[in-house]
This record gives sequence, C-alpha cells and structure tokens, in this order.
Amino acid sequence: MYSARLSIGSVSKKAGNFSFLGKRLAHSHALSNTVHDIVAHSGTAKEGESVTVKGHIRNVKTMKSHAFIDVSDGATHHAVNILLPDPKLTTDLHLKVGQAVEVVGEFKKSEVKDNVNEIHCKEMTVIGNVPDKYPIQKKATSMDFLRTLPTLRHRTATVASVFRFRSYLEGCFMDFFRSESFIKVSPPTLTSSDCEGAGELFYVGSTGKKNFFKKNAYLTVSTQLHLEVLAASLNRVWTLTPCFRAENSDTNRHLSEFWMLEAEISHVEHVHQLTQFAQKMLQSVVQSKGEASKTVVGGFEDMSSSYRSQEKVDILSQRWNTLLEDQQWPTITYKQALEIINENKGQETELQWGDTLTTEHEKWLAGTHFQKPVFVTDYPKFQKPFYMRQSSPDVYDSEQPTVACFDLIIPEIGELIGGSLRIHDYQELTREIESRGMDKKALDWYIGLRENGTVPHGGFGMGFERLVMYLSAQDNIRDVIAFPRFPGSCNC
Amino acid sequence: MYSARLSIGSVSKKAGNFSFLGKRLAHSHALSNTVHDIVAHSGTAKEGESVTVKGHIRNVKTMKSHAFIDVSDGATHHAVNILLPDPKLTTDLHLKVGQAVEVVGEFKKSEVKDNVNEIHCKEMTVIGNVPDKYPIQKKATSMDFLRTLPTLRHRTATVASVFRFRSYLEGCFMDFFRSESFIKVSPPTLTSSDCEGAGELFYVGSTGKKNFFKKNAYLTVSTQLHLEVLAASLNRVWTLTPCFRAENSDTNRHLSEFWMLEAEISHVEHVHQLTQFAQKMLQSVVQSKGEASKTVVGGFEDMSSSYRSQEKVDILSQRWNTLLEDQQWPTITYKQALEIINENKGQETELQWGDTLTTEHEKWLAGTHFQKPVFVTDYPKFQKPFYMRQSSPDVYDSEQPTVACFDLIIPEIGELIGGSLRIHDYQELTREIESRGMDKKALDWYIGLRENGTVPHGGFGMGFERLVMYLSAQDNIRDVIAFPRFPGSCNC
Repeated sequence: MYSARLSIGSVSKKAGNFSFLGKRLAHSHALSNTVHDIVAHSGTAKEGESVTVKGHIRNVKTMKSHAFIDVSDGATHHAVNILLPDPKLTTDLHLKVGQAVEVVGEFKKSEVKDNVNEIHCKEMTVIGNVPDKYPIQKKATSMDFLRTLPTLRHRTATVASVFRFRSYLEGCFMDFFRSESFIKVSPPTLTSSDCEGAGELFYVGSTGKKNFFKKNAYLTVSTQLHLEVLAASLNRVWTLTPCFRAENSDTNRHLSEFWMLEAEISHVEHVHQLTQFAQKMLQSVVQSKGEASKTVVGGFEDMSSSYRSQEKVDILSQRWNTLLEDQQWPTITYKQALEIINENKGQETELQWGDTLTTEHEKWLAGTHFQKPVFVTDYPKFQKPFYMRQSSPDVYDSEQPTVACFDLIIPEIGELIGGSLRIHDYQELTREIESRGMDKKALDWYIGLRENGTVPHGGFGMGFERLVMYLSAQDNIRDVIAFPRFPGSCNC
Repeated sequence: MYSARLSIGSVSKKAGNFSFLGKRLAHSHALSNTVHDIVAHSGTAKEGESVTVKGHIRNVKTMKSHAFIDVSDGATHHAVNILLPDPKLTTDLHLKVGQAVEVVGEFKKSEVKDNVNEIHCKEMTVIGNVPDKYPIQKKATSMDFLRTLPTLRHRTATVASVFRFRSYLEGCFMDFFRSESFIKVSPPTLTSSDCEGAGELFYVGSTGKKNFFKKNAYLTVSTQLHLEVLAASLNRVWTLTPCFRAENSDTNRHLSEFWMLEAEISHVEHVHQLTQFAQKMLQSVVQSKGEASKTVVGGFEDMSSSYRSQEKVDILSQRWNTLLEDQQWPTITYKQALEIINENKGQETELQWGDTLTTEHEKWLAGTHFQKPVFVTDYPKFQKPFYMRQSSPDVYDSEQPTVACFDLIIPEIGELIGGSLRIHDYQELTREIESRGMDKKALDWYIGLRENGTVPHGGFGMGFERLVMYLSAQDNIRDVIAFPRFPGSCNC
C-alpha cells in the first residue's frame, strides 16, 4: 500500500509499518516534490486512494457509531475530516485538541460539502501530545487572550490566516514592483543619522568592543535618505525593512519595531505623480484578490473563510471593495481639508491654517465625509521634515508656505502612506538645513548627492502592518506582526 | 510633436518647450503607465519617432562632424547613444560624465549593433551638474577605490548591475518559496534571547526611556528560534531579514549587519530531506538564468554584459553552470570529510575526529577535490549549538557523538548554508540545555513548544550576501550590500 502525497512532509513510501500504537515512520530522504496542503490540493487524490496527512487536531467529535477529528496543517485554513470507525478509539488514543498527529487512511470526496473531504482512518499516530490545559480549544477565543500566548496564538484559524495573508501580500508587492521595473534594495537598519531629525531613537552598542562603530549608531526610523542615494543610481527603488521607533506609545496602532515599505523614484516632478502611483500600487495589490494562483496560499479567500464572524467577513469585503471602487481617489490640499472640516464637521472651534490634522480628523475625512481613501497634499512646511520640496506654484502661497507632500488617509485607520518630493537643489537643501539649526556636517553624505548629477525625485513610505490591519480587518497592530515589540515587551 | 514613452519618468506630453538652454519640462501628473528603461524596451519606439530619455552621462565622444554621448538611467546596464549634430555642442553645453540630462530626439535603430540604439538629439537639458572632480569617470575604477565613495559607487555599470542582480535574486526566492507553499514571515530583529548562545551581541537601548523593554534587548543573530514557533503553526516558513554579529572581524566575508535567508519546515525526519531541499532551492533560482521576463530587470544577462572583464564573465558562467550541473550534489559526513582530507590533501598533520574543518579545508573539498558544491553532514555534537537533534542511527556513534546537521560548502566561498534537524522532544531538549549550563528559564518560551503538539522539524540559514557574492563573482562582501556595516564603519 502506498500513501499519496497529501500532507506536507509526506512522501511516497510503504506505509505498512503504521499502527495505532504510535510506531514512527521510516521516511525517504526527500520532501515531496511539490508541496500539498491538506485539502486545497486534495483534488490530486483519487477516491479510495490511501493517503497520509500530518497536522494538529482542531476538533474531536464523538458520535454513537464513529468519531470525526478535524486535522489542519496550518498551510491553509482548511481542515480535513478524519473518520474513525469506532468512537472508542478517541479515548483509547487519548485524542485531544492541539495534538500533532499522523493519519493514514482512505480518501473520500465529501458528498455534503465542497472542500471538506474525508479520510477513513486506517492508522493514526500521535506525534506530539499536549497537556490537559492546552489553552487553544475549538471554542472561539478573544484576541486579547491570544496575545497572552505569544508562541501558540498563530495556531488558531484566524491568527494563522492573518499571517498567511501577510505573506501573500508581500508577494503581491514583489510582483507589482517587478512589473514596474523597480529594484528592491536593502538599506541598512544600523545608521548614524536620524532621518526625521526628531523623536526618540534606539541606540546600539556591542557587548564586547566599546565604541564598535567609532561613532554613535542607531536603529533606523526610515530608510528614505539611503533610498535617495540608491534611486539616484538605480532610478527606481523599493524596500520592505524593519524600522524602529523608541516612542513610549502603548496603543493599538504603534509598534517599536515595524516593517516599512518605502519607494523612491527618480524624475518625479509633481506630488500628483506620487499619489497616482501609490493608488495604482494599492489597487494592483487588491485586484489580485480573486486571482491567487493555486500555488500561492494566503489570499483573500483563505482569510475570509477562516473568519468565524460574518460581521468580520463583511468588513473585509467592504474594505477591499472600497479600495477597488474608484478610478481616482479624491485628492485635496491640507487647506481644502481644513475648509471641508470647518464647513461640515460642526466642531466647536474652527481649525486655523497651521493646526494639525488629528487622527480623528483624518478618520472623519476618509471614513465619514468621503467614505473612501483620500489624498491630502501640501501641508504647512513647518509641520514637516527638512527634506521636502516646496509646493508647486499653482498651490504655493508664500504667506502660508507649504511643501509638496501627501498623506494617504483611509477609513478607520487614518494615515497609511506619507510621501513627498525631495529637495534636489543643493543650495535650497543647505539653506533649509541651516535655517533649522541642524547638524549639516552629519548630513554631508546626503547633501552631496545634490552636487553630483541631481535629479528631481520623490517617494513615500507605508507602515506595512497598517495595511495588513486594514485589509485583514484586524483592530490591533499587535495581531498582524509575529512577535510584537512595544514598551515593556520584548519577551522572547 | 509628442515624445514617446521611452525613459523612466517620461510621460506623454507636448515637448515643444524644450531648448538647449535648459528650459524645464512641464510634466503631466502621472508616471508613465508602464515603466520603460532606456534601451531594453526601446522595441516599443518606432524608427523616426520623437522620444525623451533621462539619465546620467556615462561617456562623451567628440568626432569631427558630430558627437556621441552615452546616457544610462540605471534601470538596466544599457546606455543609449545620443547623436549630437555638432561636436561644438558638447563644449557649449559643458557636457560632462556624471551629469543628469534630459534628451529629446528622433529614435533610430542602430544598423551596427543590437540593443544599442541611437537618438538624434533635438533638444537637451542638463538637469543636474557635477563638479569637475566628479570621481566616477568612463575609465575602469577599482572596487577598492569605489568603496571610498559610499553614495556614488552604485552609479558604475558593475556595482549597479550587482544591485539589480541582488534584487532579481530576491524575487527568484520569493517565486520559489511561493511555489513550495511556504509562508513568508517577519520574525523580530529585537530579541531578548541569544539564539546561538555564544559570541558578542549588539545591545539596544532607548535615548529617552530607560529600560524601555523592561529587560535586556539585543539585535538578533539568527531568527531560527522564532521561525520554529511559526513553523509549528504554519507548517513551512521562510524569511529574509537583517541579522547582526558584533564580532570584531574585518574581513571580506563578514558584515556586522547582513541579510539572512532562513527556512523552517515541519515534519522533517532526516537531514537529507533538508539537503535535497536546499539543493532544489538553489538550482531553481539559478535555473531562472535565461528566463528573466521582460518586466524583470537584473538577471544574469544584465549582470554579465555590464562586466568589462572577460575573465569575470567567464567566472560568472562557470559558477552558474557548476550549480546547475549535477542531479545530486555529493553528500558526505564530517567523518568522511576528515578521511578524504587526510588521504588526499597531503597535510603535515592528520586531522583527528573533533578537529574543526577550517575555511581552507572547506574550499579545498568543494573547490579542488569535488569541484562542485558539497554537503557535509553530521558534525561532532560538541561543536554545535544546543538545539540540534542527534544523528540518525545509521551514522550515529555514541563514542563520537554527532548531530543531524549539514553545511553546504561551495567552491571559493566555503560555507554557504548551515542547517539541522531540531530537537523536538521536551525531555531531550531540557537535558541538553541543562547539561550545557544554559539559562533554561530564558528559553522557557522556546522549550514550551515541545510540550504543545511538537513535531519533528528542521531548517537552515543562508547568508544572502554570500550567495550574491558567489553568483555575481564579487570578491568582497562589502560590494554586494548597499551600505556595508563593519567595525568602525557606520558612516551614514
């Protein structure tokens, strides 16, 4: 009897040495040539064929004359139903939710449901036991509770699907940027410069050699300055790297270590080129919703079918559709944003030019007023970092000076992307750095680009976890990164 | 007159307002819908069509009756030849190598060479000037010299091609792992545990809040322990993340910050499953050599045609072919490796069991003896970290205890990949940690996996820059990472 290639890690082999008592497998020395998850690829198994699956028990259902156990291997949200011919076997074998098992049996297409196939169990081995108090049970558990289980929470259907989706999403960005001839680059996370020129940093030292780098070294808050160097050579570059903020913010939207997707583009002259490109990027990624190839796991379908609550599934669909809906997302200036808020929001105090648009304002603009993503451009210069280029003449007002930047605001999240044109003129950049009292010498390497074949350029950065949150309808950023880091939390 | 979409960043527009005197362009608000580099996509331009290109001048050649300038935009290794109708224009416009220019002209297919097309210049603008001492000239410059120009070196044909190739390679890995149903994960770079249990670390602190994480935090040396957690949930995972070593090594093979590709796989029972998978991975990536789609830049062709020295190109081809040659790379145990070295290498002193295989031994094995990649498995247990599983019974010898691990050794580089089966048994792992006198409490989160549905698993890690070095025939690891970090060097 040969087992079919049905479970990841299973291989063609004689399976006659299996038994219910736990004898281990003699494996051949190859992973299966192609990887099969438990159910999605079960189309390759034939009715009545002998198959082997390996995974964790999600559920044990005991009936009068038989029992079912659900086994999932984590590669998709699907579980396979294992039919045990005698309900007594579940107690004989001490079967429990969470155990890792290996099952050999006969494959049966389900007559009841699509995608839920059965295996009539012939042999079963418990590979890895669980304690009686194994905390992840069939019943739904809150995300708050799961966060207390940093090494086990990824086993739940919902959390696992979020991480499969995150992986899927990263692949979509890779595809998009390749199709746009961007070069993916790896700027450093260790840096001696402080990109934004404000805020707390993480410093880095060696446990051995003192003054390892012969100057102060920090963890990067944004790789933009380095990306500008690379864009000046390679034309268009992007990256997805860890960035760090040592801010003492304990919220559901902030992490001390997060992943930032940044892009930098040469020969960009207007901020609207950036906003249009950012929209194209997001829509191209969302458009792939229905097109996930069979070899790629973790797309919209995988995620939405793993969510237990219909409410969550509705939010998911609505969010994805919102991003796809429009040909051209509304683009307003900061000044227009103030006007719209003052006219419509019925606030007690009118916003004045120079006031900050708060997260609350942003959510109102995108969530309530426009009910779609909105680009807000041309913010007051004094609110923004030194490297931003002056607004284009059609919107620039020397009484209320603004810079050619944009934020992409999306419903329920607020800011998702921030970008700008960068000052590419040497004199202008030097003046700006001096007028802000910054340390020009420390930025010589960056300013020097403007003396060596400078071109107009611009780019943007997007907190990757923010996008995962929005597209997976998760409310807490800590649930979309594998091991969240925040003040007081670096526990493993 | 309309310009064609020929240069990255160029857009459909009326181009009549160009002049030789430097008038700037009025741009529309979109990047071109599809991105075009200067030459590779010039197939889309028609003979005689008006086109616009933007890029840096690589060369200025003045003839009797006309002049040529080579312009490259960095997106591929190709340059386009711009024909100036009068050699005097080069002096009138002060054209120099390194300047950023915008050129409008008439497109001509070259009658002489493939892929080298001409533009008969109508209008030219110098966008960004360079100083007279601009250090990157047409003449070949040594990599040693280029390393002194951390913000400009990426503009040379060779260095740029290495970074385009690195980007291309990362895409190949993404494709491979997707096709194998792996989930890409993002383990943390900030950690409170020290994976290998040895060696110097970088510690991290906040410039603001003292004791930010309420425990000591370090930069990760390997994400393996976290990957094991994720593989136990998602079945097969991979990552490509920065890792850090605070070793005081100033060599051409070491970096303080490097990128590591790591994979972790559930239900693996034998180290040969891992070696076969690692070989499959590398061969699948190298096999893509000739298949780079038109929308993906940076493959073998781009790189090899940017190399000036035929010797380098020969090394390139030979290395790629070496990886592709064999169905099954030789796999020997550490013990067999000792025997082969003792029999063949004619050393003065015979190697004894327990001796370290040095880089010199490794290079001899792969480079001289086998002349191909070699897997060396089952090293002495005492040489290896605590988490490695005992060798399989067919090779295990209790007098000379070994672990189920492997190194992939390649010619000229030495170790490229290291991997192992991990101990998945709770008692065994606990014993091992205790016998080594390690801090068990700090590893509770990791050990706990073995009590909660444990399965046999294993994985490996590969220094990504090492592979880029080998496949791009570069001798110094600092030339294949954008901003190298090493002792004394964190300069921007």
